[in-house]
Amino acid sequence: MMKRIDPIQINWKPAKNKVIPVYKQIIQYVCDRVASGEWVIGARLPSQRTMAKLFNVNRSTISIAIDELTSYGIISGKSGAGTQIVSNTWALMLPTKPSWKKLISSGYFQENNYRLQQINQLEFEPNIARLGTGELDLRLFPQKMWTEVLQKMSTEITSWGYAEPLGILELREAIVEHMRQFGINVSTENILVTSGALQALQLIASCMLKEGSTVFTEAPTYLKSLQMFQSAGLKLNGITMDHDGLEYWKIKNQIKNSESSILYTIPTNQNPTGITMSDIRRKELMDFCIKNRLPIIEDGAYQELCFDNDQFKPLKSIDDNGMVMYLGSASKTLAPGLRIGWVIASKPVIQRLGDAKMQMDYGASSLSQLVFAEFLKSGKYSSYLVDLKKTLKKRRDNALECLTKYFSQLATWNKPIGGFYIWLTFNESIEVDDIFERALKKKILLNPGDIYDFKHNRSIRISFAYLECDEFKESIKKLALLLMDK
Amino acid sequence: MMKRIDPIQINWKPAKNKVIPVYKQIIQYVCDRVASGEWVIGARLPSQRTMAKLFNVNRSTISIAIDELTSYGIISGKSGAGTQIVSNTWALMLPTKPSWKKLISSGYFQENNYRLQQINQLEFEPNIARLGTGELDLRLFPQKMWTEVLQKMSTEITSWGYAEPLGILELREAIVEHMRQFGINVSTENILVTSGALQALQLIASCMLKEGSTVFTEAPTYLKSLQMFQSAGLKLNGITMDHDGLEYWKIKNQIKNSESSILYTIPTNQNPTGITMSDIRRKELMDFCIKNRLPIIEDGAYQELCFDNDQFKPLKSIDDNGMVMYLGSASKTLAPGLRIGWVIASKPVIQRLGDAKMQMDYGASSLSQLVFAEFLKSGKYSSYLVDLKKTLKKRRDNALECLTKYFSQLATWNKPIGGFYIWLTFNESIEVDDIFERALKKKILLNPGDIYDFKHNRSIRISFAYLECDEFKESIKKLALLLMDK
Ligand SMILES: Cc1ncc(COP(=O)(O)O)c(C=O)c1O
Ligand SMILES: Cc1ncc(COP(=O)(O)O)c(C=O)c1O
Repeated sequence: MMKRIDPIQINWKPAKNKVIPVYKQIIQYVCDRVASGEWVIGARLPSQRTMAKLFNVNRSTISIAIDELTSYGIISGKSGAGTQIVSNTWALMLPTKPSWKKLISSGYFQENNYRLQQINQLEFEPNIARLGTGELDLRLFPQKMWTEVLQKMSTEITSWGYAEPLGILELREAIVEHMRQFGINVSTENILVTSGALQALQLIASCMLKEGSTVFTEAPTYLKSLQMFQSAGLKLNGITMDHDGLEYWKIKNQIKNSESSILYTIPTNQNPTGITMSDIRRKELMDFCIKNRLPIIEDGAYQELCFDNDQFKPLKSIDDNGMVMYLGSASKTLAPGLRIGWVIASKPVIQRLGDAKMQMDYGASSLSQLVFAEFLKSGKYSSYLVDLKKTLKKRRDNALECLTKYFSQLATWNKPIGGFYIWLTFNESIEVDDIFERALKKKILLNPGDIYDFKHNRSIRISFAYLECDEFKESIKKLALLLMDK
Repeated sequence: MMKRIDPIQINWKPAKNKVIPVYKQIIQYVCDRVASGEWVIGARLPSQRTMAKLFNVNRSTISIAIDELTSYGIISGKSGAGTQIVSNTWALMLPTKPSWKKLISSGYFQENNYRLQQINQLEFEPNIARLGTGELDLRLFPQKMWTEVLQKMSTEITSWGYAEPLGILELREAIVEHMRQFGINVSTENILVTSGALQALQLIASCMLKEGSTVFTEAPTYLKSLQMFQSAGLKLNGITMDHDGLEYWKIKNQIKNSESSILYTIPTNQNPTGITMSDIRRKELMDFCIKNRLPIIEDGAYQELCFDNDQFKPLKSIDDNGMVMYLGSASKTLAPGLRIGWVIASKPVIQRLGDAKMQMDYGASSLSQLVFAEFLKSGKYSSYLVDLKKTLKKRRDNALECLTKYFSQLATWNKPIGGFYIWLTFNESIEVDDIFERALKKKILLNPGDIYDFKHNRSIRISFAYLECDEFKESIKKLALLLMDK
C-alpha cells in the first residue's frame, strides 16, 4: 500500500554573486520545496556528490547545508541510504522568517555578535576570571536573610491564584515606601511590577513607541537595551558623555519634528562606563527635555548603589510634568534570578502597560513578588544594602588602587561613585581585540567596549562587583604583565 | 523673569458626523496641540462654558474630555483659576498610539470587551459565587507540601545569578521525566521554560509567525489565546467541534497556499467546552496536518487532569515529523501564581524561542523554577495530582448530578472526562445576557459563552473546579429557580 515516491528532480542553481552565502541559498531552496509540498515526506535527495555537480559548488558547501538541514529536522541524513525528506513544519518556519535574532544581529551590533556569543559561553567556563561581568558576586548573597524570608513564606502563603494586573498590592506598597528615600513620591497606582527591568523596557518599546521612532541613548550604553529597541523596530541614536554625563545638547539638531523620539538614560552609575550624571546636568537635561517635549526612560538599575554620597536623586524626583518613566530592579542589588523590576509612571500609562503585561504573561511570579516584598517590608533589604555598599566600596577602592599601581602607563579610567563598573581606555598602542585573545589564554575574560558602543573604541568594561579584592588584584596584575610583555 | 504666556486661541470644531465620538476628538485635538508644542506648559484653556460654545457641543461633553485629559496629567483642572496645560509627555503618547489594548478591543471581540471587564472586576467582589471561573479552588492548595518544599529551598538555595537561557537544567530534566508518562520522549534541549503557557504563545506568535498569517482555532476557544494572536497581527479562523473534537475537514477549503497558516488546538479537556478529542480524531488530524503542512500548537494546559482514563495521549506523542509544538503549564494543576509553563519542540525551534525569551525578560523566576522542579522531582506533584483528580472527579460528578436535577428542562450539556469545564447550552427561549444580569443580582457570576466564541451563542461556561460541591449545588439551584421564575 506504500505510495511510490518519485525521486527528486532538481533544476536550479544558486546565484554566486548574491549577498546571501551559497550554502544559505541551498538551505532556503530545500526549505521552500518542502514547505510548498513539491517535495513530499519520504522523498530522497540526490547524493552529495551529485548535488555538488548540479549546483556547481564544492562538496564542503553541500555538506554544510545538509548538516544544517539535518539539525533542523527537515531531512534525515542516514548515510549510505541517502538523504530523505522528513519535514519538520515548525523548523521550516525558521530559515525564512525574519526573526528577533536576525533583527538583533543586524544593524550596529552585527560585528559584535560573534564576540558576544563567545563571552556568553566563556562565562560558564570553570576557573575563568570574569573581569567585566555585569552581575553581583554570587558569594554576596544574603543567605541568612534569605532563609528567614523563605521560612516565613513557607507557612504564610496559603494559596495563590492569578495576581493583580499591576503586581501584588503588598509589593507595590513596599516599593512606594522604598522609593521615598530617593525623593520619588508616588502611589501604588503609579507602579507596575515587571519580570525585571528588561521586561519593562520591552513593554514600553512594544506598547508606547511607534515603529521607526528614534531612541536617543548614551553611547556606550546597556547592551540589552539596544538589542531590545532594535528588535522593536526603533532607530537608535547614540549621544556621547562627558564627566558629568550625557551631552544632551548634541541631541538638539537630531530631533526631527516629523517623528517621535524618546531618551533612554542611565543617569546613575551608568552601564558600562560607571559615569554618574551631576546634579546640574540633571536639571539642565530635564529643562531640555521639557522644552523639546522629549520623554525620558530613566533606568535606575544601579540607582541604589551609590557608596560615596547619596545626593544624586533620580530624574523622576524632579519630574513635575510626567516626562520621566522610571525603571527599578532587584537584579543588581539582590538577585537577578528573582526577576523582579518595576516601572513608575503616571496612572494611565501604568494602566496601559499593565494591560499589555497581562497579555504577555499574566504578571510576574507571585512567589518572587512576595519574597521581595518581605525583604523590603522587614527592613532586611535596607540593612543588607548598607553592608553590600560597604563591600562594593571596598572593592571599588581596591580596584582603583590596582589600576593606579599597574595601569598608569597603559590606560586611563574614571572613578565611579557607585555601581559595578569602571571604564578603562587603553593607550594608542594597544588593540583591545588582541588583548582579549591573549587575556583569554591566561584565563581572564574581558568585556571589550565595542560591544556596548555605536563605534569602535579602545576601552574595556571593568567590573569590581564580581571578583573579590584579591582575585581582582591578581587578574589585573596578570593583565598588566601581559600588556607590558608585548 | 517669568515668560508671559499668551492665552490659547482656538479655531477648530469637532466633526459631528465622524465615527470617533466628539469628546475623543476634543481630547485628540488638545493632545496634538500640546505634543506639537503649539500650546506650551502653563498656558490656560478657555473656560468650559466658552469651549462648549466654541465647539458647539454640550457642557457635559467638554466636561468628559477635561476629566480624561486631567487624569492623563496633560492639564490640571484647578477649578476657578481655569484649566492649565501641565503636559505629561508619556501620557501624550497614549491617546494616539494604536496600542495593544486597542488592537484587542477591535475585531471579533470588541463587543465582548465590556462584559469581560465587568467579569474581571466582579471576580474580586466578596461573596460572589463564581460559577465559570477558569481557576482552581484556592482551598485545594497543597499547603503541607508547599511548606516542605519552601523549607527545603530556604536552606538549599545559596545564591543565584541570571539563569540558563532555556530554563534551569534541573527543572528541564524533571519536565523531561514528567512528560514520559504522556508518551512524549524528548531531551532537555527540546524544552524551553516560560513564564506560563501564555508567554509561550506570545513567544511563538512574535517569533515564528509572520504578521497576517492565519491561525485556525477551535470555536469557541481559550480567550487569551485569541487576544494574543490578534495583538500579534494574526488572522483568526474559528473551526467548530463535534463530540470528538475539532472538525478539521472544515479547515481544508480555507487554507490559502499564498499565506502561512497554523493550527492552535486544546485537544484535551478543552477550554471552554470541556470537549476531549477522541483518539481516532487525533490520528486523522495529524494526517491532515502533515498532508497540508499545517503546523500545530498543542495547548496541554488541562492534559494532566483526565479523571476517567488516561488514554488520551497528546498529539505530540504521535508526532514523527516535528509538526507539533506542545505547551505545558503548572497553572491549572498547582498554582498560576508560580508562572511556570513550558514549550516542547525541536532543538533549533527551542533555540530560537529561547533567544527571544532572553530578549524579553531573561527567563522565568529562578525561585519559581526551583520550587516546581522540587515538586516534580520529589514525587509530591504526582501524589498531589492523584488527590486533586479525585476531588475534581467528585466535583464533576456532583455538577452533572445537579445539572440533571435542575436543568434537564432548560439546557443541554456535555460530560467532560476531566479538566474544569462543562459547556451548558440553553433552550431557545432563554437569553444569556438576560440571565447574566439576573444571576448577578443573586450574587452568581456567569461566564457567557459569547466571550470565547466567534459568533453569538446561547451557552455559558460552567466550571466545577472553583466551588465546593455544596456551593456549586446551591448556586445551580438558585440559577434554575431564577430561570423558571421567568
Ligand atoms: C542598566 C541596566 N538596566 C537593566 C538591567 C536588567 O535588569 P533586570 O535583570 O531587572 O531585567 C541591567 C542588567 O544588566 C542593566 O545593566
Ligand atoms: C487552554 C489554556 N492555556 C493556557 C492558559 C494559561 O496558562 P498560564 O497560566 O500557564 O499562562 C489557560 C488559562 O486559563 C488556558 O485555559
